[in-house]
Amino acid sequence: MSSYWSAVTRGLVPYVPGEQPALDNLVKLNTNENPYGPSPRALDAIRAATENTLRLYPDPDARALRAALANRYKVSPAQVFVGNGSDEVLALAFIGLLKHERPLWMPDVTYSFYPVYCGLYGIEYRQVPLDDDFALRPEDYFPRGEDRAGSIIFPNPNAPTGRLLPLAEVDRIAAANREADVLVDEAYIDFADPDASAIALVDRHPNLLVVHTFSKGRALAGLRVGFAIGHPELIAGLERVKNSFNSYPLGRLALAGALASVEDESWFQTSRRKVIASRATLITQLQALGFDVLPSAANFVFARLPGFDAAELAAVLRQRDIIVRHFKTPRIAQYLRITVGDENQCAALVDALRDILCSQG
Amino acid sequence: MSSYWSAVTRGLVPYVPGEQPALDNLVKLNTNENPYGPSPRALDAIRAATENTLRLYPDPDARALRAALANRYKVSPAQVFVGNGSDEVLALAFIGLLKHERPLWMPDVTYSFYPVYCGLYGIEYRQVPLDDDFALRPEDYFPRGEDRAGSIIFPNPNAPTGRLLPLAEVDRIAAANREADVLVDEAYIDFADPDASAIALVDRHPNLLVVHTFSKGRALAGLRVGFAIGHPELIAGLERVKNSFNSYPLGRLALAGALASVEDESWFQTSRRKVIASRATLITQLQALGFDVLPSAANFVFARLPGFDAAELAAVLRQRDIIVRHFKTPRIAQYLRITVGDENQCAALVDALRDILCSQG
Repeated sequence: MSSYWSAVTRGLVPYVPGEQPALDNLVKLNTNENPYGPSPRALDAIRAATENTLRLYPDPDARALRAALANRYKVSPAQVFVGNGSDEVLALAFIGLLKHERPLWMPDVTYSFYPVYCGLYGIEYRQVPLDDDFALRPEDYFPRGEDRAGSIIFPNPNAPTGRLLPLAEVDRIAAANREADVLVDEAYIDFADPDASAIALVDRHPNLLVVHTFSKGRALAGLRVGFAIGHPELIAGLERVKNSFNSYPLGRLALAGALASVEDESWFQTSRRKVIASRATLITQLQALGFDVLPSAANFVFARLPGFDAAELAAVLRQRDIIVRHFKTPRIAQYLRITVGDENQCAALVDALRDILCSQG
Repeated sequence: MSSYWSAVTRGLVPYVPGEQPALDNLVKLNTNENPYGPSPRALDAIRAATENTLRLYPDPDARALRAALANRYKVSPAQVFVGNGSDEVLALAFIGLLKHERPLWMPDVTYSFYPVYCGLYGIEYRQVPLDDDFALRPEDYFPRGEDRAGSIIFPNPNAPTGRLLPLAEVDRIAAANREADVLVDEAYIDFADPDASAIALVDRHPNLLVVHTFSKGRALAGLRVGFAIGHPELIAGLERVKNSFNSYPLGRLALAGALASVEDESWFQTSRRKVIASRATLITQLQALGFDVLPSAANFVFARLPGFDAAELAAVLRQRDIIVRHFKTPRIAQYLRITVGDENQCAALVDALRDILCSQG
């Protein structure tokens, strides 16, 4: 602890992201990257933007990208906000929208960043338990007299469980909480049914903000682009915070690549369908090996193997150059979060698990 | 004002960045971009990184770029922090390092973002007047008994004046304030004498943090990369805040381009020398037209034309498709900040000014 640190810095417990090893030849199934890569049109657009104009600042309003997203998601550009990855969009939403006198409600098992943001921004929060099968019960988010949320956030599909809350249930939560901001973090929604996204609800609910990322469905984790869609007043609030607190816009290459990615619907659909198909196969194979696997609408599965310690199983896989994610947290310490890789990666995982089970059984 | 905004959002007065017009054919001298463009090696490196691996997250620790910067600036990688533009580095430094019980001291005429960050993070600050020629007097920053700074920030060269504080004076300020963080924002230092940078002092002062950008000297404003160099404890504080509050690392293309830029010393030196030569010519020409021009060690000049209202002059130039920056703020409302463009841009500016003066004189 340095005396040159602020009190805020001294009080922080830093978030630990998933391992990003420098080694090649690893079967990397720990950070939910998309195995199929970005649209070739996105790569072409980035290369075309890699020229002398990089000396110029980017458009701080990201007008072209916001117009393309508005067109793709059938909203107006004033309903679209973009940022450096959905993590930045979330950070701005926490401080700009979700901080109120009443606490922020979130699931007890959820994206581990949410409590970190609350700590940083001094946001009081309540962890609402998922049910025994890790499903979110909408009723738990309904106001009961004076006991109601100042704001609500949950991922859908949830992370790290992968479980999807049906759109009608999201609708009920937003409708029951007209006075509260409701943020649905749809980082993984591209791997669910296309009708599952709450973007379809934003015109009905002025309190609903839906956050997406280019890192998963669009396979651009290395580019750092995310966006939010909601009522123009919510977007204006995010812009207001961003333009005060954070003037760093998306760079020119991120803007160019994201724009072309949005415009390549065919690549996007093909990619997500391949992941969805691999997920179905992987779940069947894991179940055949004895795993309990939660229903997944994401590009990962959340699974446990009764009789095996999850941390040990992750360590044994790591020795075989396969990385999966294990969280040492209450309720889920016996689960592994496994990214749906390509066919070879899935096969390598299943083969390794079979081998481990045979040698131990 | 929306009830869905947090109190923070409702209380903000957003920063207004310089105009980024979409029109071509403008002589754009308002945001201090480098006319000579980025290193061709940086562009090549970005193109080479524009491939399928964009599906993967970037290295959250930016190890390769930090090693290259450490090598270039003769420090250790543990003394280097990188971020999405120096604005992000500054934001993290304000909350992570500069916020203390005693106020943050800064010049009264300085980068307009500093008070904005203070407002956002609840940092008390004191504006220390520059002298009548807009020079910073080091003695004004020395403690006088109990009246001393909790932390200190100033740009060097200062913005928007362009004036450079000699290195020995920076040294005195850091030495006189051992208990305070001293942040020197060297966004424009690449256009000063190579010996002017306070990076040479960081091994002597554990309280000194020096912030640089790739946007000016390295002509990569469109890529959004900045960095800080200081004692490993200061860097550790920044990392701690970043990893809690802001998990968004530099993207893969920014890392690749910045790395190659740092390694192309020859391009960098040629570019900065051309700007410095153009600056000398521009100052002479403006003085010949009757301007008072402050000494500049930056890629802009800060000048006033006695007898002409600066806002009007900027408006007349704008009608001729030449954009310069005017600040409606105390003490400097009669000055214009003019970017040093390439030869054609400088000539267009001087021709237009001559024409305006003739038609009005």
